[in-house]
Amino acid sequence: MELSVTQENLSRALTIVGRVSSSRAGLPILGNILFRTEGNRLLVAATNLEIAATYYVGAKVTKQGSITLPARLVTEFLSSLPKDTVTLSVKGTRMTITSGKYTSVVNGTDAEEFPELPAIDDKEAVHYTIAPHDFKQAVSQTIIACSADTSRPVLTGVYWQSIDGALYLAATDGYRLAERKLLDTKSQIAAIVPASSLQEALRTVSDSVESIEVVFDNTQVRFRAGEAEITSRLIDGNYPDYRQLIPTSSETIVTLAAGEFGRVVKIASLFARESGGGITLNADAEEKQLSIHSIASELGENTSTATADVSASGQITLNSRYVSEALAAIEGEHIEFRFSGKLSPSVLSAAEKSPNYIHIIMPLKS
Amino acid sequence: MELSVTQENLSRALTIVGRVSSSRAGLPILGNILFRTEGNRLLVAATNLEIAATYYVGAKVTKQGSITLPARLVTEFLSSLPKDTVTLSVKGTRMTITSGKYTSVVNGTDAEEFPELPAIDDKEAVHYTIAPHDFKQAVSQTIIACSADTSRPVLTGVYWQSIDGALYLAATDGYRLAERKLLDTKSQIAAIVPASSLQEALRTVSDSVESIEVVFDNTQVRFRAGEAEITSRLIDGNYPDYRQLIPTSSETIVTLAAGEFGRVVKIASLFARESGGGITLNADAEEKQLSIHSIASELGENTSTATADVSASGQITLNSRYVSEALAAIEGEHIEFRFSGKLSPSVLSAAEKSPNYIHIIMPLKS
Repeated sequence: MELSVTQENLSRALTIVGRVSSSRAGLPILGNILFRTEGNRLLVAATNLEIAATYYVGAKVTKQGSITLPARLVTEFLSSLPKDTVTLSVKGTRMTITSGKYTSVVNGTDAEEFPELPAIDDKEAVHYTIAPHDFKQAVSQTIIACSADTSRPVLTGVYWQSIDGALYLAATDGYRLAERKLLDTKSQIAAIVPASSLQEALRTVSDSVESIEVVFDNTQVRFRAGEAEITSRLIDGNYPDYRQLIPTSSETIVTLAAGEFGRVVKIASLFARESGGGITLNADAEEKQLSIHSIASELGENTSTATADVSASGQITLNSRYVSEALAAIEGEHIEFRFSGKLSPSVLSAAEKSPNYIHIIMPLKS
Repeated sequence: MELSVTQENLSRALTIVGRVSSSRAGLPILGNILFRTEGNRLLVAATNLEIAATYYVGAKVTKQGSITLPARLVTEFLSSLPKDTVTLSVKGTRMTITSGKYTSVVNGTDAEEFPELPAIDDKEAVHYTIAPHDFKQAVSQTIIACSADTSRPVLTGVYWQSIDGALYLAATDGYRLAERKLLDTKSQIAAIVPASSLQEALRTVSDSVESIEVVFDNTQVRFRAGEAEITSRLIDGNYPDYRQLIPTSSETIVTLAAGEFGRVVKIASLFARESGGGITLNADAEEKQLSIHSIASELGENTSTATADVSASGQITLNSRYVSEALAAIEGEHIEFRFSGKLSPSVLSAAEKSPNYIHIIMPLKS
């Protein structure tokens, strides 16, 4: 293998791909990056067996070939080089990397030992094309509600599901639930994408790409953004019928400014932190306010109040972290916060007619 | 105690003072902040018994008094409040903090239990007035060479010493040595200031203050920046006669651009990291270059070269981290790097006639 590339292109490719490599014991080759010429392009790839990342770099190839090299060393070396042409030259299992006055020899392994990269048969697959901003927002809004508990694997992913001609993303950990309507589509899909793969896809999407292509087959999903691809297995299993948890109506509907709601929750959470995170939200229809009370066991207590429209007075106790994270995920100047007494789920959304994002939080027993 | 202050002033004071508080087991009161009125000012103070931090806030005091409150809770609460007037009101060992729609009650302890704050008798003391930029630069340049090894306490501090009408700061951990000339002065001083206290002073100095006042008595030092004061004990003991380690002449003198030197060292260090950090610097008078070679045991090796003026060819092996940190600390477009064979200390400084900062690094045996 012999070729030259620009430092900028190769460094960008290695940075994206290198994150997926993992030097877990047992399979040291997974800590390496695969370099392989394909015509006048250089493929760089890494995999941890769950996720594979690939990137194609335009190159001036004078001799075809392949090798694998330790990810961290080669990524950091390439990213430290000045912007210039870089020459890669492989002999046996050693690659010589030269750029101006910088020369390195890196010892690798034969590309034959590298795991086969996953492939999706595009003809049999379901395709979506998503604007980068929408993709990043929808994934960020739902991924926060994923469970970290691996004893129920389906809850560690985000559920991509088509309902009535639209694609929805949803996640729940049993304590809260987030659902985002992403786009209108006739394609039918029901697939659970691991949160870790979505994190990787999020990191890979730069604002410079025009669109994200998402392709599902029965067992895998592939995200393509420009020259980068992330392919991941799907989580096997049936996602719970979460929609039955979403209250259709609520007794108390509170509408208030998002900034002020965020501030009173943040202040209340400082005190709640010392005593399990519970904050009690008190909606007062007469006083037209939402007040939040929290107790820091022996340290003290706090009451903070925000001006609000309140349909009917009521009280509920929620985990302050869940409320903060929900508010951070909702886009909108005003928030609609509704609940029905102390025991039913509460609903947060932007205060608009048909918000594309809703967030459900189960109450704490107080 | 009853008073009102602005949120901005009180929050700034608590943030600076709160960092010194420590909730180490044994003396829980050290995790508290002292609030005490002094005329029309509010004193806030914290101490970990080695360092004390105080800050005076202008206040409208209607009733004198004092209390101590848990540092983290009260600091975070105050910094979360909007910019507005804050009212503090103490009854017994509880303080009620009110600002607009936000009310908290925080439980504290009697101020009588708080340790006495250290005091310096200014009449018996040595005074320096230092420009903030010079103070920050000189401390940052020397503190990096302090030892973390508490078995030789004197080396864990920075030595402030007057020599021939000038004040010098110096630090060494036995492997490297940094010395900075700070200002001309007739005052006589020889004092070892703990690195941790200097870190705290660095954090406290904002660019908005006009000068830093540094005052030494026999056992303590006080840094005053605006309304903030940091008082620290000095380290007891005799500082080694470090100046005998500084080579007066060198066989090989290399002069090169700081940016390029930094880059070749950084790249070499990526490889050196895998094998103990040693990099071999090779100065070639004929080729007019400094080349650096490093070996990543089984992973590979690197040679990087920078254009340089070289007085005489020579070779030395140094720890790459020490060289990187020295280069980051030296201000100047060009670096003078000199050494005498493989066994004597090397010297780095800005390439100018009388640099105010020099950095010595002992060679590794190669």
